[in-house]
Amino acid sequence: MKVLIAGMDGYLGWPLAQYLAARGHTVAGLDAFLRRKWVTEMNSDSAIPAAPMTERLQGFENRFDQKLLFREGNLLDYDFLKQYLAEFMPDAIVHFAEMPSAPYSMIDQKHAAFTQNNNVIGSLNLLWAIKEICPDTHLIKLGTMGEYGTPNIDIPEGFFEIEFRGRKDNMPFPRQAGSFYHWSKVHDSNNTMFACRIWNLKATDIMQGVVFGTQIDEMGNDLCFRTRLDFDQCFGTAINRFCCQATINHPLTLFGAGGQTRGFIPLRDSMQCIAIAIENIPETGEYRVFNQFGQIYSIEELAGLVQKAANEIGIQTIIQHYDNPRTEMEKHYYNPDRNRLIELGYQPSDNIVGEITIMLKDLLPYRERVLAHKEVLIPDIRWDGNHQRSVAIN
Amino acid sequence: MKVLIAGMDGYLGWPLAQYLAARGHTVAGLDAFLRRKWVTEMNSDSAIPAAPMTERLQGFENRFDQKLLFREGNLLDYDFLKQYLAEFMPDAIVHFAEMPSAPYSMIDQKHAAFTQNNNVIGSLNLLWAIKEICPDTHLIKLGTMGEYGTPNIDIPEGFFEIEFRGRKDNMPFPRQAGSFYHWSKVHDSNNTMFACRIWNLKATDIMQGVVFGTQIDEMGNDLCFRTRLDFDQCFGTAINRFCCQATINHPLTLFGAGGQTRGFIPLRDSMQCIAIAIENIPETGEYRVFNQFGQIYSIEELAGLVQKAANEIGIQTIIQHYDNPRTEMEKHYYNPDRNRLIELGYQPSDNIVGEITIMLKDLLPYRERVLAHKEVLIPDIRWDGNHQRSVAIN
Repeated sequence: MKVLIAGMDGYLGWPLAQYLAARGHTVAGLDAFLRRKWVTEMNSDSAIPAAPMTERLQGFENRFDQKLLFREGNLLDYDFLKQYLAEFMPDAIVHFAEMPSAPYSMIDQKHAAFTQNNNVIGSLNLLWAIKEICPDTHLIKLGTMGEYGTPNIDIPEGFFEIEFRGRKDNMPFPRQAGSFYHWSKVHDSNNTMFACRIWNLKATDIMQGVVFGTQIDEMGNDLCFRTRLDFDQCFGTAINRFCCQATINHPLTLFGAGGQTRGFIPLRDSMQCIAIAIENIPETGEYRVFNQFGQIYSIEELAGLVQKAANEIGIQTIIQHYDNPRTEMEKHYYNPDRNRLIELGYQPSDNIVGEITIMLKDLLPYRERVLAHKEVLIPDIRWDGNHQRSVAIN
Repeated sequence: MKVLIAGMDGYLGWPLAQYLAARGHTVAGLDAFLRRKWVTEMNSDSAIPAAPMTERLQGFENRFDQKLLFREGNLLDYDFLKQYLAEFMPDAIVHFAEMPSAPYSMIDQKHAAFTQNNNVIGSLNLLWAIKEICPDTHLIKLGTMGEYGTPNIDIPEGFFEIEFRGRKDNMPFPRQAGSFYHWSKVHDSNNTMFACRIWNLKATDIMQGVVFGTQIDEMGNDLCFRTRLDFDQCFGTAINRFCCQATINHPLTLFGAGGQTRGFIPLRDSMQCIAIAIENIPETGEYRVFNQFGQIYSIEELAGLVQKAANEIGIQTIIQHYDNPRTEMEKHYYNPDRNRLIELGYQPSDNIVGEITIMLKDLLPYRERVLAHKEVLIPDIRWDGNHQRSVAIN
């Protein structure tokens, strides 16, 4: 199939290009390279060097014996978007081209407005462009499990049958997101659901858990095939940041009690799931939601697993609680479904300590890069709007 | 109390300034005058002339013996907004400053993106500005009953207690809006709910029914006190448009079967409800939702009532079905609550035919203005993205 990856330069986008090419798909990409700029704005850098796109494209062509069509561009540029779709006419579009950080969206008014404009209008433009240019194209939209928040009931996949005052209906499951970023993804989900209903588009909206990992089997060995790995307060996610902290013997930073519980998924599983979504096409007019994660852990459990894996390869590290810069529940019920991808063949990895060990080994050669930016490991962006570095607590 | 009306030049904003001043409140306003431009873009004009703001302000000062502080400005201009709030330091802000039309948001990509950017980012800026400048200010945000769509179950006021797989939670009621405009209001509701939670703001989110009417008792007699009354396909709402059609003996235009059922509220009741919301302040951190409408009617019933009222004052008119440009259910269950405002003292008007008669008499002197733009009475903006004038059907 012809698959367009929007956001192909990112953490997920670049491995996905390789994963799909290895499965015989024809890949094209676009990216505005904003992630590189945002991480620089955070005074940080990817722990694993992210090769420039020119090198990535050259390496891809040498390895897969196919040219990888790529355009630098932004979803906010509607004319660019329409022209590109008309040129490539994709069977599927994987939409990774959004600002992906909760703390970044909470910095101040400017960053909140940027996030919601960039994500909501970019995604809205993509819906219009698909409608106008290629209405049979399947949109695979990256959402987040964070759209649901942490309700006191089970979390189904997007919709649920409810009874209220003696009548029944099948309704969208209520969203209770926890940052302006997460809400931007809810807004996207709502717009996408509506576009499928009125225009008969087909879309898969992926509520993905927190991704971690440095490797997929299909990743080439040259440095140009590696994907970025961020560890700053905005773009570094939990396990990735813990692993980077471990490589420099920095305490693993838990925020608050550490009982925050989420779905997590290894990078290799994320690729597996997205390929399943691409290769199992929804009906015309269908808007389907997949909850996409491997396992559920509390942050505290994860820190323990990273500590253990680090210890086994001779790295000593401690776990340290910090005051929580976010407004969130630190202990709560959490029981999301994830049946739909399993039914379509998803086989979750079950060796998380093994995965963490691979990460630590991949990251150790780059410990100097983490050390050079170690001040970004402790957050100072707070949900209450103040900017104050978190401090260690008992 | 000191009340800032954002969108004071509009259909609701200008009567509200008078209504609140008559009740002893100190009013200030802002407006970017976009509504006037949008209606011009639709090749239409208000049936009742909308006096320029300079005349409105002068008339207000003469009548109420108080200067009405007013600034031309846009919520997208964050510096303007912050400065104005710091200057006036309102006790309450009534937020009417959004693009209010479903069809306008469905014209094309550009209008959809404009709508969501204008409404979502403008409202987001307002939340940030309140947080930064006047966190004790009560935000009264105009949403719409259209946020809920037409579910097959009762519609509570914003939240409901549900049981799912044996566990219970109090959750936001799922929204199923029917246009990119309506979705922009859902996005706003979600952002507002979140801001109250993390920043302890207080907000009333008003899910208002379709407003109709030309008069409130507190409206001055001079032309400068009258409010606009639109009848074009974008900014003319059902009863208002029917009344304008009747004045020129144009058929009353029903779209599809006409069984679409909605909550409706006279202009005078809308003013009453908003004052109740202002004068009954929520708790700090409280986000409350009021469903605000007087009665429920199907579009077909309303056309019949307008026909009857017109007939009684000697105006002959017929009812004509047109093919429906929207994607919506034309017959459906509809049973929304509206208890909260009633509990706070709202007394719904019960003489809708009387209200329609007042409207017809107010509009008759302006029938030439409607005649001059009569081509805008039949819609050509379609939800399927095509632009084609609706045609009469049986």
